[in-house]
Amino acid sequence: MELDFQKSDGLITAVIQDYQSGRVLMVGYMNEEAFRRTVDSGFATFYSRSRKKLWMKGEGSGHRLAVKEIATDCDRDAVLVKVEAIGPGVCHEGYESCFFRLLEDDKWKVVDTPTYDPAVIYGGRA
Amino acid sequence: MELDFQKSDGLITAVIQDYQSGRVLMVGYMNEEAFRRTVDSGFATFYSRSRKKLWMKGEGSGHRLAVKEIATDCDRDAVLVKVEAIGPGVCHEGYESCFFRLLEDDKWKVVDTPTYDPAVIYGGRA
Repeated sequence: MELDFQKSDGLITAVIQDYQSGRVLMVGYMNEEAFRRTVDSGFATFYSRSRKKLWMKGEGSGHRLAVKEIATDCDRDAVLVKVEAIGPGVCHEGYESCFFRLLEDDKWKVVDTPTYDPAVIYGGRA
Repeated sequence: MELDFQKSDGLITAVIQDYQSGRVLMVGYMNEEAFRRTVDSGFATFYSRSRKKLWMKGEGSGHRLAVKEIATDCDRDAVLVKVEAIGPGVCHEGYESCFFRLLEDDKWKVVDTPTYDPAVIYGGRA
């Protein structure tokens, strides 16, 4: 049984969840090669829709995502990847999770505290 | 600060997570109207890419998703919706979560037990 890469221009949605805390850390997208590299290497690898190329999360920052478990959904067009996040945070803006803003009174409010300084890790680059 | 509906044909990705157990239950997609209805009604509403229309999860089955909290990510093109799932299961195939298959030895294996009979709820329709 294969994943369905056809429904969304060759991509599936990949939800990244901390395997211990259960916190959802980020959402990325994988084409078939990115999925294959994720499985084979044991580190989450995505396809960047904006840069139109593969990227292993953490290839620059060192903040890699070590795969613990991969599940797929009933439609086989999304995967849930449980990971051990290497390093202090997944988000390039300096937070543990990319989901650091909550909707409150119809406004997005930052509710987390940064876990590292992205300027040091990324040198000011996103 | 608005969500970015432009990056993916008017849609954002919505990850649905049980607010108590932390289990990821499903992934859906929302256009701006679906997101607005989700916020205003308090029940998760999606845009079906295959049927090309809005659908409130549970409008047929009664298995609605009561919103507890909504977060967005750094790119503002995905939301994480923590919910209380009404009913025995979110997946139309009879499982608590749509992510009921795990990758084992490069094969997808069903690892969950059904929590209800979808033929009773959905009358054989998906």
